[in-house]
Amino acid sequence: MFRIPRGTRDFTPEEMEKRRYVERQMRTTFQVFGYREIQTPMFETLELFTAKSGDTILEEIYSFTDKSGRKLALRPELTAPVIRFYVDKMQMSPKPLKLFYFGSCFRYDRPQRGRYREFRQAGCELIGTNTPEAYAELIALAYFLLKNIGLKNIRLNIGDLDVLSSMLRTLGIPKDKQKQLTPLIDKSQFKDLTSMLHTMGIKKKKIDEFVDILQTTDTQKILEFLNKNTSSKAKIEELEKILDLLRNSFDIKNYHVNMSIVRGLDYYKGLVFEIDAPVLGAEKQLCGGGAYELIPLFGGKNIPTAGFAIGFDRTILALEAEKFVFPKPKTDIFIVPINNDMMDISIKIAQNLRKEGIPTDIDLLRRDVRKSLKYANAINAEKTILVGPKDVEKNCVTLRDMRTGEQQIIKIKDIPSKIKTKKLQ
Amino acid sequence: MFRIPRGTRDFTPEEMEKRRYVERQMRTTFQVFGYREIQTPMFETLELFTAKSGDTILEEIYSFTDKSGRKLALRPELTAPVIRFYVDKMQMSPKPLKLFYFGSCFRYDRPQRGRYREFRQAGCELIGTNTPEAYAELIALAYFLLKNIGLKNIRLNIGDLDVLSSMLRTLGIPKDKQKQLTPLIDKSQFKDLTSMLHTMGIKKKKIDEFVDILQTTDTQKILEFLNKNTSSKAKIEELEKILDLLRNSFDIKNYHVNMSIVRGLDYYKGLVFEIDAPVLGAEKQLCGGGAYELIPLFGGKNIPTAGFAIGFDRTILALEAEKFVFPKPKTDIFIVPINNDMMDISIKIAQNLRKEGIPTDIDLLRRDVRKSLKYANAINAEKTILVGPKDVEKNCVTLRDMRTGEQQIIKIKDIPSKIKTKKLQ
Repeated sequence: MFRIPRGTRDFTPEEMEKRRYVERQMRTTFQVFGYREIQTPMFETLELFTAKSGDTILEEIYSFTDKSGRKLALRPELTAPVIRFYVDKMQMSPKPLKLFYFGSCFRYDRPQRGRYREFRQAGCELIGTNTPEAYAELIALAYFLLKNIGLKNIRLNIGDLDVLSSMLRTLGIPKDKQKQLTPLIDKSQFKDLTSMLHTMGIKKKKIDEFVDILQTTDTQKILEFLNKNTSSKAKIEELEKILDLLRNSFDIKNYHVNMSIVRGLDYYKGLVFEIDAPVLGAEKQLCGGGAYELIPLFGGKNIPTAGFAIGFDRTILALEAEKFVFPKPKTDIFIVPINNDMMDISIKIAQNLRKEGIPTDIDLLRRDVRKSLKYANAINAEKTILVGPKDVEKNCVTLRDMRTGEQQIIKIKDIPSKIKTKKLQ
Repeated sequence: MFRIPRGTRDFTPEEMEKRRYVERQMRTTFQVFGYREIQTPMFETLELFTAKSGDTILEEIYSFTDKSGRKLALRPELTAPVIRFYVDKMQMSPKPLKLFYFGSCFRYDRPQRGRYREFRQAGCELIGTNTPEAYAELIALAYFLLKNIGLKNIRLNIGDLDVLSSMLRTLGIPKDKQKQLTPLIDKSQFKDLTSMLHTMGIKKKKIDEFVDILQTTDTQKILEFLNKNTSSKAKIEELEKILDLLRNSFDIKNYHVNMSIVRGLDYYKGLVFEIDAPVLGAEKQLCGGGAYELIPLFGGKNIPTAGFAIGFDRTILALEAEKFVFPKPKTDIFIVPINNDMMDISIKIAQNLRKEGIPTDIDLLRRDVRKSLKYANAINAEKTILVGPKDVEKNCVTLRDMRTGEQQIIKIKDIPSKIKTKKLQ
């Protein structure tokens, strides 16, 4: 027997139905926001990913060499491939470009709950604009992507790396030392942060104030901390404009300003945001994004860029944790020819239903009625149609409701109208 | 600048729209036939594929070693993974199992028209039945998958490896020598076949008769050639039952019996079929399948199995060659705030349309009306809504049809009802 590779998954029909439901809903949300889908290859040249993320990524990447000696890698994320695609073929397209994607990504990592070696991401990039309304729309899109699939409890955190940097400068930490602090800020390890700032010679009162501000959601307090420094003021005003649009135009009231959002990657600039599902506990982050600068690194002409990615697998875990009722896979109609002479007419009935878009199955094992009904139950058939010689002589069949057990004899020509069922979307 | 790996492709929004259209249609057809979707990982252990296809496959497979020294391979096809999944987790499921899938496959091959290093397959497996009605339904499914996406001209060829084997035995060719002949039969190289049979000592008259029969579509002639051998007779009768069901119950008249269909792989048994798109010339095969025996090889309990795969990329080439008109990607509504004070109300209007499922975009670059209309044209917007202070004072906006240039002033509350457009599916 052959085994599935460690850290990867097979998806049963029940699981696929959940995944396709989420994908369908997300695709619709992307499209109603004016985004259009693209796709890139499953692997890229290895340098694409080391250029973006540094050599540390080699630790957790699946790489291989092709016959001409070129190093290739299974993609660990989708932003780098999409920006490569943009630089290569879309720089001349009318701006802004609103692009979304779904795809498998790969990470050579220790498998754990909600983390797999092959995992699925949904995401988007918004290229060519940096207005507050563009950023507000981007955040709203991420929010509605998760809301529209049926998640009830999500938490949206919004930060700004420029503001955080100003805060650190106000504290007296120069740019080159700020990097040491960001991992602690990102993980909200405020105790360790306090002692590190202490060793850097910052006064206790200032440190406490700073740690307070990292946790405030009040932009006015942040502005006070920054001592109304002019350039910071413009930044805060822009952030306030974004928040104002979210609240009033997009009707999103429950966001949280949070300057400890860092995202931990060098290419993020300015706005950053994350969406969590608190129901998931420690591994709760579903979405992360913000404004970033990657195009010049990939050889393109610099232009404002922003985007986000959603962890598809974890989103499904969150729906399950919230006991969301997914649409159930089902076969609407199962047809049972009473004997083998009834096969031809039974297939014709099946084909007429299929032409109407109604999922229809038929016994393919020449089973007796009892066994066929048992199978129909096992595949969740809503109704069965029993096709027997006596009924057929009168141009009729027997329609059985599998939930109530109720049976009625109906004309063959009336079957489609009697099958009150939704068509497939 | 980074390059895309050789033999792989980026898909633009226009191309993705075509691909998603075909996938959507195919998924619906699979589902109305009672099939349910599954998914397996993008890579498997290398031995899975060498067990199925022999070591020759190593030549054209992307393989790599994981950190525990296990050889992995990007999947070159999907039947082996699906059967691995079945043996591992679905042997106890009620039969028959009707499973379908879509997925990327990988082949380390010289790239050429319609052949890529990453390519997409659609396919299915039918596990647990070998009745004529099961096989007829399987062939019908393949046929309607291609018909329902809009292909006009396809050719369905049906053969039977057991019948071919009987024919070769009748000719006096023992089982172990038959293998040498099958590649020539598969490629319809009848001249080379004739001379090889000649060197094998077969009489010219017999050879000519055999080559004729390979090209006949008349099952009675085949039966005569087989000299009414009893076991062959049962095989031919079964084939005729399948053809009869296709013709009369599935209403598929234009199939061709063709005993030169071989499929070239050892695990096929009995029924085989192929569907071509003649419009594509030499590389015309879109679909291939049949009955096969793979489960015991993978450590499972033997049970009848059949299935087929469709080349997704070539199917799209065939639609394009037939000048099929794909649904066009479009944004229904583009909203233009006349000045920046109109942004809040403009976003509200956009959000109301989006809630109704109408794809809506809005200017995110604070452009003037002329430039905004140019952009709206570039993204194929059907209508624009101009939001200006004078109109808004009277709770109105200006609705502009982008095709006719016609403009009308309408009440804001009437916008959704005035946008006569189809919702997203």
